[in-house]
Amino acid sequence: MLDNIKSIKFNKDGLVPVIIQEEGTNKVLMMAYSNKDAIEKMVQTKETWFYSRSRQKLWHKGEESGNIQRIKKMLIDCDNDTLLVFVEQVGVACHTGEKTCFFKEL
Amino acid sequence: MLDNIKSIKFNKDGLVPVIIQEEGTNKVLMMAYSNKDAIEKMVQTKETWFYSRSRQKLWHKGEESGNIQRIKKMLIDCDNDTLLVFVEQVGVACHTGEKTCFFKEL
Repeated sequence: MLDNIKSIKFNKDGLVPVIIQEEGTNKVLMMAYSNKDAIEKMVQTKETWFYSRSRQKLWHKGEESGNIQRIKKMLIDCDNDTLLVFVEQVGVACHTGEKTCFFKEL
Repeated sequence: MLDNIKSIKFNKDGLVPVIIQEEGTNKVLMMAYSNKDAIEKMVQTKETWFYSRSRQKLWHKGEESGNIQRIKKMLIDCDNDTLLVFVEQVGVACHTGEKTCFFKEL
């Protein structure tokens, strides 16, 4: 696992995009960015952690709402610069109360 | 549609991350970035277009391989800064020959 983490290519801001997909339904719930510390937290806690660019700090998804995401599987793409994380979502993923953050058609 | 495109919040590089999901199977196939021109091309052609940061130019997915992606639905997230595009994938999505770019477990 640690060797695979070393293969992650972070962008110029030290971040990697992380797509969150619900196990079972295969709904894409959200996308956020993680830095190296957030990735290590995910590995340790088996819950999702991100880096908030606006607040400039680590963010444990569900820390306030209780709507945590339990990690079931972590995949990395062919270029090693994007993660796809399958989770069990407690409650809803979106702060609006919707299940997924993708509920508006363009 | 054009009004909705105006709502897209591009990042400081003028890009928005675009998650590509296969209609039917719900497999996440890839993630790439699009700029405003690429989004307009997607709307016009109903096929996926991205902006290649390394080559610094628009990129029509499948232009060389023939493995185009026909757009079935475009969603935007609650923050208006990430797109989720459902497609019909011709052939495979990944340049390695795999169906999806996410085939390696972390």
